[in-house]
Amino acid sequence: MAGNTRGRMFRITTWGESHGPSVGAVVDGCPAGLPLAAADLQAELDRRRPGQSDLSSSRRETDKVKILSGVFEGETLGTPIGLEIKNRDARPSEYEERKEIYRPSHADYTYDAKYGRRNWMGGGRASARETAARVAAGAIARKWLVENHSLEIVAWVKVVGKIELKKDNLDQVTRQKVESNEVRCPDPEIAQKMREAIEKCRDQGDSLGGELQFVVRNVPAGWGEPVFDKLEAELGKALFSIPAAKGVQFGSGFAGARSTGSRQNDEFKMEDGKVRTQTNNSGGIQGGISNGMPITGSVAFKPVPTISQPQQTVTASGEQVTLEAGGRHDPCVLPRAVPVVEAELASVLMDHALRQQGQKNIPTSK
Amino acid sequence: MAGNTRGRMFRITTWGESHGPSVGAVVDGCPAGLPLAAADLQAELDRRRPGQSDLSSSRRETDKVKILSGVFEGETLGTPIGLEIKNRDARPSEYEERKEIYRPSHADYTYDAKYGRRNWMGGGRASARETAARVAAGAIARKWLVENHSLEIVAWVKVVGKIELKKDNLDQVTRQKVESNEVRCPDPEIAQKMREAIEKCRDQGDSLGGELQFVVRNVPAGWGEPVFDKLEAELGKALFSIPAAKGVQFGSGFAGARSTGSRQNDEFKMEDGKVRTQTNNSGGIQGGISNGMPITGSVAFKPVPTISQPQQTVTASGEQVTLEAGGRHDPCVLPRAVPVVEAELASVLMDHALRQQGQKNIPTSK
Amino acid sequence: MAGNTRGRMFRITTWGESHGPSVGAVVDGCPAGLPLAAADLQAELDRRRPGQSDLSSSRRETDKVKILSGVFEGETLGTPIGLEIKNRDARPSEYEERKEIYRPSHADYTYDAKYGRRNWMGGGRASARETAARVAAGAIARKWLVENHSLEIVAWVKVVGKIELKKDNLDQVTRQKVESNEVRCPDPEIAQKMREAIEKCRDQGDSLGGELQFVVRNVPAGWGEPVFDKLEAELGKALFSIPAAKGVQFGSGFAGARSTGSRQNDEFKMEDGKVRTQTNNSGGIQGGISNGMPITGSVAFKPVPTISQPQQTVTASGEQVTLEAGGRHDPCVLPRAVPVVEAELASVLMDHALRQQGQKNIPTSK
Amino acid sequence: MAGNTRGRMFRITTWGESHGPSVGAVVDGCPAGLPLAAADLQAELDRRRPGQSDLSSSRRETDKVKILSGVFEGETLGTPIGLEIKNRDARPSEYEERKEIYRPSHADYTYDAKYGRRNWMGGGRASARETAARVAAGAIARKWLVENHSLEIVAWVKVVGKIELKKDNLDQVTRQKVESNEVRCPDPEIAQKMREAIEKCRDQGDSLGGELQFVVRNVPAGWGEPVFDKLEAELGKALFSIPAAKGVQFGSGFAGARSTGSRQNDEFKMEDGKVRTQTNNSGGIQGGISNGMPITGSVAFKPVPTISQPQQTVTASGEQVTLEAGGRHDPCVLPRAVPVVEAELASVLMDHALRQQGQKNIPTSK
Repeated sequence: MAGNTRGRMFRITTWGESHGPSVGAVVDGCPAGLPLAAADLQAELDRRRPGQSDLSSSRRETDKVKILSGVFEGETLGTPIGLEIKNRDARPSEYEERKEIYRPSHADYTYDAKYGRRNWMGGGRASARETAARVAAGAIARKWLVENHSLEIVAWVKVVGKIELKKDNLDQVTRQKVESNEVRCPDPEIAQKMREAIEKCRDQGDSLGGELQFVVRNVPAGWGEPVFDKLEAELGKALFSIPAAKGVQFGSGFAGARSTGSRQNDEFKMEDGKVRTQTNNSGGIQGGISNGMPITGSVAFKPVPTISQPQQTVTASGEQVTLEAGGRHDPCVLPRAVPVVEAELASVLMDHALRQQGQKNIPTSK
Repeated sequence: MAGNTRGRMFRITTWGESHGPSVGAVVDGCPAGLPLAAADLQAELDRRRPGQSDLSSSRRETDKVKILSGVFEGETLGTPIGLEIKNRDARPSEYEERKEIYRPSHADYTYDAKYGRRNWMGGGRASARETAARVAAGAIARKWLVENHSLEIVAWVKVVGKIELKKDNLDQVTRQKVESNEVRCPDPEIAQKMREAIEKCRDQGDSLGGELQFVVRNVPAGWGEPVFDKLEAELGKALFSIPAAKGVQFGSGFAGARSTGSRQNDEFKMEDGKVRTQTNNSGGIQGGISNGMPITGSVAFKPVPTISQPQQTVTASGEQVTLEAGGRHDPCVLPRAVPVVEAELASVLMDHALRQQGQKNIPTSK
Repeated sequence: MAGNTRGRMFRITTWGESHGPSVGAVVDGCPAGLPLAAADLQAELDRRRPGQSDLSSSRRETDKVKILSGVFEGETLGTPIGLEIKNRDARPSEYEERKEIYRPSHADYTYDAKYGRRNWMGGGRASARETAARVAAGAIARKWLVENHSLEIVAWVKVVGKIELKKDNLDQVTRQKVESNEVRCPDPEIAQKMREAIEKCRDQGDSLGGELQFVVRNVPAGWGEPVFDKLEAELGKALFSIPAAKGVQFGSGFAGARSTGSRQNDEFKMEDGKVRTQTNNSGGIQGGISNGMPITGSVAFKPVPTISQPQQTVTASGEQVTLEAGGRHDPCVLPRAVPVVEAELASVLMDHALRQQGQKNIPTSK
Repeated sequence: MAGNTRGRMFRITTWGESHGPSVGAVVDGCPAGLPLAAADLQAELDRRRPGQSDLSSSRRETDKVKILSGVFEGETLGTPIGLEIKNRDARPSEYEERKEIYRPSHADYTYDAKYGRRNWMGGGRASARETAARVAAGAIARKWLVENHSLEIVAWVKVVGKIELKKDNLDQVTRQKVESNEVRCPDPEIAQKMREAIEKCRDQGDSLGGELQFVVRNVPAGWGEPVFDKLEAELGKALFSIPAAKGVQFGSGFAGARSTGSRQNDEFKMEDGKVRTQTNNSGGIQGGISNGMPITGSVAFKPVPTISQPQQTVTASGEQVTLEAGGRHDPCVLPRAVPVVEAELASVLMDHALRQQGQKNIPTSK
């Protein structure tokens, strides 16, 4: 149970290390008949790839994805979809001289503790490069959800360091607004402040964390499972599986917890013959199951641990050393994390859409 | 995939509704040879059961657990451990008159949307009563973790409404301090303020949310899996599966995300020949794998949705009605959630302890 | 991964030992809305229980099943169905004096080797008594399959020792014919010969094995999965999980393997607008997926290992001893295995019916 | 749950179609530190590849495997091992003219029934070409089992059509003897008869089925799980997942079922301080758990369904047609199935070795 597979009905298995020949995924359980081409996946990969702006890592990767199986005559077959993305700008030599050094708040030490060895080239399996495979897989889920359920999945940068987008009207943020600037914050003024904060931090050899907000519209009521596989539990697991994620909340989250039932409860009303709530403090989920309102929440990302300032650390043999880090990296991972968060949401929601289908009394035909 | 089973190697399946004959669990994968008696489980159940103080629901349940299988001559057999807890104080009649009404922020509507029906007696399967089965199961994990790895798992109430325990020194909180008062806050003065807030809120027919802090000491480095089953992901999923949980964070969490890498990175040092960190902003987990430092974090619980104040809502047939709720309930669930959070942490950590065993090169004998 | 759970969408977890307080099951994933009462399960349990004729073990068990959860107002809720069957005629004392002795071809030694201990009372977890829980669970699947897909699942005794029902016309065997005699062989004359063989063997203190034939009618084309979860693979796994099963074949099986493609291939034809085959050597499954023809096959059961004749064996401490076995047991398990085989077939087929639903493009509503 | 993944601790996911760009596998859960190179896998792939003798399909594939991840500096990392095998001699055009025709006893019709479409090029996902990925994955398991437990896994051809190797002394067959001829039957005289039968059949445009025998030596006592995941159940599932497998038996199997307990029971004895049995009718497994004796059994394969003789069949649109099949194929698949059977046995046994490790009380260190 080595943890490289996710999902019950819509399943994703990823493989690959940061500086190996390639990374990839096997997507199993996508229903047959979905029109699909590499270009569908590429659109999302291009939002995640490094080098897309001067705010991100200078590693030059085109992240071109190849579909190796599971698509035939332009449609999915129902069989596993093999995906591969070549690593083109791997530079292992940059890491060789530091291969014995445990970089603070990276996974170097924990991988050694777990496996007794590690691929020391740029984080190996722990590198955020692995998320390229998830984004490609999630793009399949997104397309299926759009075609079958008209879902809208939008995430954006809400906090960078001390800069916060306070007045984000969850109903009105669109992908277009998010993509209108490189920071991926829908408010251009705040975006500009965030950009300046990131640039300043980068120039100081430091890094910044932040928070992503997300909203998923048009989720039907009834997705999610009681008890252990509640929708918050499944989405929460996926979001916490993104590198550097350290906090997740749904609806009014931590703030709502400091309030009272009379203020937080979402009273029901009828709207166009449908059950809706007057407020959405629950973030679209009650008892672990979607209630038809938008699913909302946010994810906190710690600052990128790779910084240029000198740090105290130890080596694999227990020596105390000072690390002056190099390596190409992002001063703030938030803008590139947007498509990753969206991919994770899509993957989990598609899984639950199929799970829900599978537990109804729908006789199969033929 | 109906979501009532958790775990890979240490697996828990729960069953039962709030007002049915009983609730229970099947615990599969506990290694043979663990000394175990019902009393081991009862100690934890007694911390969770209703009616233990005037702050909790007046439902009278002794929550006596019976072990139906898997234990023989005082030790576990390695085969499934069947557990049953009878429901003694079920009062379905209290719910009958409101069975068509969707209680705001409860799971009434979402269960109907999902299944086309629901057990309307007190929440049915969605009731927090189901957590009794988890606490019993988690007590087995806790005992195994204590005996095999000397783990210490401690949770406590950090926030109730506006009252917050700000100076919680994570290293010094003990179970004894937590259990010294009914609120389960280790600081007696803050505990008293929380008690007053809960009583005041109860008298107003309202309810309060809050936040639980937890720490797990002595987790060896190397537990947790890369990628999808990171330790934050697995623990986060379990914590979000607790009824009313709406936020989870690890280490410095949301606050740390607003800081910089130079402030948040945990520099390494050697201590008694072991790799340790000087700070613990990572909450004991790096790259999804434990690093040998205490695992720390917190969980936000929304206010209990059952309140006595009148609320607008709708019925199953779409009529607008005003609900004046009754039912026995807690004005603040936090004190009773402490053993639930600890049980969830124990269950997940035992699962990962066994998973880690299973992927090493340890030849079996005979 | 202790192996006490089966299924992906329709999941069964069993617990309990032969001479503990009870055995039981948790059935998860049954769609909501299936009319269900204990009597539905009891009908199948009565076919399996000991003491039903002088051909079976004299252990007196009524095998009354109790539904503890998951059914409300006469219908399934979609939540887990807890089932319990009390053990009433346990006689552990009969086993105490032999508790150190490894009975040949039983699981005594292998459980000790695996767990370092075992419940020595009558086989403990390895006892065929565990199958009572499976039969109860399988009865739920059978009912769902009958109501939703009109499936007919029939198994019968084809071979007992040297006596064989050679001319079994698979199309014409009905449950009524099978139940017309205690041996559960649809041909009364062969049944009588089998009865005599069993009685003779019993009088000699020996036991007999045999073979069960099965047919499942009305399975729609399209159930089963490619590659690892082929329908033969999944059904085969379930059948091999029945105690004493040592061989499984589908369609023309071992005999067909000695023939040629020109004789074995099932040519297609159209019948009432449906694709059918002229022969059914494939046993209703091609490429691991049902083709709409009856699913056919057989299971070989080894002779019951408990015999009264003296046998050489060893004790847990390595001493050579002679065992003169006692214990209540069946001289031939085949008649009572019929409902077990049917239950296993039902459980697996329902799981695949739901899996197939879950991978189609069926938009959920609401 | 689309069925393209196998295993709990040692997990294999395969992808790819017969005439797509490549087939491959992701192997997850192999412990870190196993020395591994592509050559280790190639040795097994070369035994399976087409075109290795005039008895097999004339498709020209070198089946060169590439390791894409999970191996670093000559050893496994503990992270997923990505494997890819290019398809070089795909000839889709050969299939185009027959793409509407359902070939008898192939998976053409059932895939259409399941998915509403299929890759009609040479069997697509249902092609035995997929087993190349399993053989590559199984070679990893085999190497781990040899290094850690000294396992010997040997399979051979026992039956081809009417020719049978009757006197196979299971203790003495070695891989060397099996590989001494192209039929992979350890007795050279019988092998020659089998060769003649295959050639004769091929010249008649027909095909032959047969039976493979296997033995696994040095399996420790204690592998396998009670109840649903018995070792026969898990191995049986894997063997039935091989294309064309229609029967599986363990130990004395179907023949032993026609005998008595007094003849079939395996009496215990002590040998070099170890518990052993005097006979091995149980095939090394009792109560679903290995007993330290060799695991033995056999698999029946139906005749290859592709034949050159004319056959009646129907098209996707329901027309009756006569098929005169072409396509490159084996007249008898048995010789090439030997490495596939061995790979399946290895994969399952490694999974159970790790599962057994994971449920003992072995404290992890660090």
